[in-house]
Amino acid sequence: MALSYSSSLVFLVLALSAPLGLVMAGDPDILTDYVVPANGNPSNITGDFFTFTGFRKVFNTSAPAAQNFTVTKATMAEFPALIGQSVSYATLVFPPGSVNPPHTHPRSAELLLVVNGALSVGFVDTTNKLYTQDLTTGDMFVFPKGMVHFQFNKGTQPAMAVSAFGSAAAGVVSIPVTVFGTGIDDAVLAKSFKTDVPTIQKLKAGLTQPKKT
Amino acid sequence: MALSYSSSLVFLVLALSAPLGLVMAGDPDILTDYVVPANGNPSNITGDFFTFTGFRKVFNTSAPAAQNFTVTKATMAEFPALIGQSVSYATLVFPPGSVNPPHTHPRSAELLLVVNGALSVGFVDTTNKLYTQDLTTGDMFVFPKGMVHFQFNKGTQPAMAVSAFGSAAAGVVSIPVTVFGTGIDDAVLAKSFKTDVPTIQKLKAGLTQPKKT
Amino acid sequence: MALSYSSSLVFLVLALSAPLGLVMAGDPDILTDYVVPANGNPSNITGDFFTFTGFRKVFNTSAPAAQNFTVTKATMAEFPALIGQSVSYATLVFPPGSVNPPHTHPRSAELLLVVNGALSVGFVDTTNKLYTQDLTTGDMFVFPKGMVHFQFNKGTQPAMAVSAFGSAAAGVVSIPVTVFGTGIDDAVLAKSFKTDVPTIQKLKAGLTQPKKT
Amino acid sequence: MALSYSSSLVFLVLALSAPLGLVMAGDPDILTDYVVPANGNPSNITGDFFTFTGFRKVFNTSAPAAQNFTVTKATMAEFPALIGQSVSYATLVFPPGSVNPPHTHPRSAELLLVVNGALSVGFVDTTNKLYTQDLTTGDMFVFPKGMVHFQFNKGTQPAMAVSAFGSAAAGVVSIPVTVFGTGIDDAVLAKSFKTDVPTIQKLKAGLTQPKKT
Amino acid sequence: MALSYSSSLVFLVLALSAPLGLVMAGDPDILTDYVVPANGNPSNITGDFFTFTGFRKVFNTSAPAAQNFTVTKATMAEFPALIGQSVSYATLVFPPGSVNPPHTHPRSAELLLVVNGALSVGFVDTTNKLYTQDLTTGDMFVFPKGMVHFQFNKGTQPAMAVSAFGSAAAGVVSIPVTVFGTGIDDAVLAKSFKTDVPTIQKLKAGLTQPKKT
Amino acid sequence: MALSYSSSLVFLVLALSAPLGLVMAGDPDILTDYVVPANGNPSNITGDFFTFTGFRKVFNTSAPAAQNFTVTKATMAEFPALIGQSVSYATLVFPPGSVNPPHTHPRSAELLLVVNGALSVGFVDTTNKLYTQDLTTGDMFVFPKGMVHFQFNKGTQPAMAVSAFGSAAAGVVSIPVTVFGTGIDDAVLAKSFKTDVPTIQKLKAGLTQPKKT
Repeated sequence: MALSYSSSLVFLVLALSAPLGLVMAGDPDILTDYVVPANGNPSNITGDFFTFTGFRKVFNTSAPAAQNFTVTKATMAEFPALIGQSVSYATLVFPPGSVNPPHTHPRSAELLLVVNGALSVGFVDTTNKLYTQDLTTGDMFVFPKGMVHFQFNKGTQPAMAVSAFGSAAAGVVSIPVTVFGTGIDDAVLAKSFKTDVPTIQKLKAGLTQPKKT
Repeated sequence: MALSYSSSLVFLVLALSAPLGLVMAGDPDILTDYVVPANGNPSNITGDFFTFTGFRKVFNTSAPAAQNFTVTKATMAEFPALIGQSVSYATLVFPPGSVNPPHTHPRSAELLLVVNGALSVGFVDTTNKLYTQDLTTGDMFVFPKGMVHFQFNKGTQPAMAVSAFGSAAAGVVSIPVTVFGTGIDDAVLAKSFKTDVPTIQKLKAGLTQPKKT
Repeated sequence: MALSYSSSLVFLVLALSAPLGLVMAGDPDILTDYVVPANGNPSNITGDFFTFTGFRKVFNTSAPAAQNFTVTKATMAEFPALIGQSVSYATLVFPPGSVNPPHTHPRSAELLLVVNGALSVGFVDTTNKLYTQDLTTGDMFVFPKGMVHFQFNKGTQPAMAVSAFGSAAAGVVSIPVTVFGTGIDDAVLAKSFKTDVPTIQKLKAGLTQPKKT
Repeated sequence: MALSYSSSLVFLVLALSAPLGLVMAGDPDILTDYVVPANGNPSNITGDFFTFTGFRKVFNTSAPAAQNFTVTKATMAEFPALIGQSVSYATLVFPPGSVNPPHTHPRSAELLLVVNGALSVGFVDTTNKLYTQDLTTGDMFVFPKGMVHFQFNKGTQPAMAVSAFGSAAAGVVSIPVTVFGTGIDDAVLAKSFKTDVPTIQKLKAGLTQPKKT
Repeated sequence: MALSYSSSLVFLVLALSAPLGLVMAGDPDILTDYVVPANGNPSNITGDFFTFTGFRKVFNTSAPAAQNFTVTKATMAEFPALIGQSVSYATLVFPPGSVNPPHTHPRSAELLLVVNGALSVGFVDTTNKLYTQDLTTGDMFVFPKGMVHFQFNKGTQPAMAVSAFGSAAAGVVSIPVTVFGTGIDDAVLAKSFKTDVPTIQKLKAGLTQPKKT
Repeated sequence: MALSYSSSLVFLVLALSAPLGLVMAGDPDILTDYVVPANGNPSNITGDFFTFTGFRKVFNTSAPAAQNFTVTKATMAEFPALIGQSVSYATLVFPPGSVNPPHTHPRSAELLLVVNGALSVGFVDTTNKLYTQDLTTGDMFVFPKGMVHFQFNKGTQPAMAVSAFGSAAAGVVSIPVTVFGTGIDDAVLAKSFKTDVPTIQKLKAGLTQPKKT
């Protein structure tokens, strides 16, 4: 159906306009089968458009093991065919002892599936109750929408998980960097965390880093 | 309210950009009273914009009777004022003995009203239970969202129905053409329908047709 | 799919509880194919559940003509199978000279189709611009969500229309009765309509009526 | 996250295109943290973008008192950072004896908070039942979605309220102007309000006014 | 936050009422962190509630290989913590030569990830265009909402995939069984598939089966 | 309209069932004008139901000044008439030097309006960019959905703000208590915050507190 629109009423063309900044989007139901990128030609869309190969390396068992916790995402940014489909994936690779620090996803719950190894996970609800679990291969855990959660490989073997999100752009708010790595005033943080300024400055020193681009 | 925006902050103008493919839309609540087409001038919008006359011929009782089952649609493609209003219509004309083959609407339920004659209808739910009914003039039947359904005029008189949809672009997936008229591999279909390849090829021969544009 | 839920986790059973008042509902997408009424047995659901015959009398051409403007509704109140399907219908019968007074539907746009005769229609947008149209048989007109609109049969022949809504419970706010028939303070109305109290009282006398049930 | 989109796939750029009319929008959840205006540069966005100072004058206690009922809005039209955030405000200033005439908001409920003085308020539901209340400083009242409502300062002191809406563009349909100030046919109105044409013409004379722009 | 509600205003308690049929649900955003089952005690909820172990056997590499195509689901029916979280999973195991027949999901797109082996996949859009792809381990493919799609292991090695859905109850409409295994009238099917009644009866013989429970 | 339902088809009654746990809810559009509580009688609903007086004390200028940062909420928990209306309020009172610590609202943006005094505010987006502003009386600031944000009264005079939310139950995740006051493993936190266990234990000592009820 997408094709028919391009040749008739192009009521919602969103132009690819070089100097422009912005952009918005929504996770509503779309009114076409799928969304063709602004610079794409609907008649050139093939099965390739609906295919994402960026996880091949993660599943390549002959590749060297990761040295750090590593997230590989397939959101609508990396995989445009997801626009309007309200679903996305991430793969999470945990070397022994590694942690995925406390974070939230502002636009979706997360459904984590351990595909290899074992993981300890947890989240805190809005009543400040902590829920934890030790997961083994094949186990799933759901982190409800907007809750602070984390994962930890406390074992000696690598672990790998695949996480699904009910949004094409769940977003990530990493708590340590957000709070201590972005320049929030020392006094605000000291009062908030009921500690002294030197402790805040020590934490900031460990977490301040170049802004992501 | 649409007018006032065009003269102030045009934050969401969707430019008509010639070489572009197309794009997307959504059935969310809009934030204006209605949506002006990309190539339209809001101050020129009159009652005509909100009027659709494409069904006059269907209701013209002096016109010759249709020889085949005929659908006439009034979705946002034919009637742009429906964009953002989450509703659309189709008229269905059934000569005696004609069938509207099994199909689904991926984006809406269908509420069918028999305005003339009699129809037999049915749908199958996700537990594979079939629901059928014989309808007479003035009767309504609702086909729930996404379910496979069909209508049949098994009588000797013509019948006519008007169907409402809770989306401006409900979409149609015709099962016979989708499955046997688009080139799906014979082996896949033979295994799926638990039959032999010659039977699949026979069905394909009847249903393969030029791709719609 | 509805059936399978009843025998497993009945997490969302909505009990029919006699003395209870309340109730709520939503027009969100449902997570079952359809919704079984609280006092219904899913295994007894047949095609009858999805059928509404309350419009037969409206389409009965041998019945005597209506003497007044008459609306017959098929919302989820009259036709429970519509719950969760986001669509509903009403039939409107207009004797010559009759009017459907200015009103709004708080929860849906209205897509009106003239199935017999001719009608004059209009609506006002939030910039206070009036849009009108004269419709003949087979014509459609869309009244955008939440706008004040009306229909008028200014001819000498009866007219009939079928209106579709993108909600199973669009609701109706009749402006004359709401404003002048519910007991709003005379002084508030006189100031609001920039007139005197006697004029308000005269209007009230014509419109005050027993509360609907 | 908004920034990252602009440098990669700009699939939904909404170009500011001079001759174009239109515009649409939606109140769905956005898939970015916020929405940068079409003519804005994401890297220039600072805290100023998220700040609205248009209410300062309303809260300026040394300013002369308003002579008439005055609404000051902060919707997405006046405060573009609200796009996609599903919330907005208005301030309402009531000199003694002033009225906010009966109106509806087609796209949101209203939650009114009296920050100074006292107000009498009311709304009518779809069963034509009137609900009223006398509010004092600090009191809140919720006008449900789409219902006709009004406020009245029946005292001798000025009053002020702040109203929140669950939409960035709730819209306003003023009943007196919509019905009697936009040119609806006298005969339609006389029949609708069960009165005579001279009374309609008298009301129109008081309410007809230049169309807003 | 769920806990606090149970001890205060239980405005939305959904009673577990034995003789009742069942009911409905929605995929809307919930207004609590998560949803406690009707027969559950919020204070007894632990990490176990958010854990699903039903996929362990699928990931058990020492178990005997499946002899047929096998789907294992983790929807809200099997994993109630998913209620309100708008996400779910299924695992798909394909012995060599096996097929997942053409089907649709009425309430979600599907995002398939090949975790072992290779698969050929395809879907047909509403313009009757077929999109196909050969996938290898680590590849993903998105089947847009409501489209007919299928998967085929045409190789000689087993394959396994994990599919994510942007709904807690995506639903499945299997085309072969829906059309030929539920008792739809032979004449309707013969006309729809442009074939003869004996061919329909042959297909029915292969596909008619006891109704699922 | 709520009334009419109670006397006809009570299809969605949500019974108040003592021993039951809970419950769910959603912020979708409702299909009635408002939602009557489970233990309420629709015919007894008056203007009082739509009125909330819990903020009177906050606006009482003769009351003693607060000694600590104090939030008073009017969500659907405190003000049930908000159920289904997608809007709520909170009042925030800041003595000189007080802080509202970094937190998120999982289900809504926040639109803060300074009604007295001055406040410094800030939030961090998902690219880890900090946005700050100094606000004076009458100024508004929008904290986008799901972002970590905070407010600080760095002056010597008390300040007061009113915040609106586009949900009847926005929820609050307080970062300091969530991370350091709920029992998350020391090792996980030390790795996450790139610090040592004694620093984590020091922070925990300041923030661990009895679980809220």
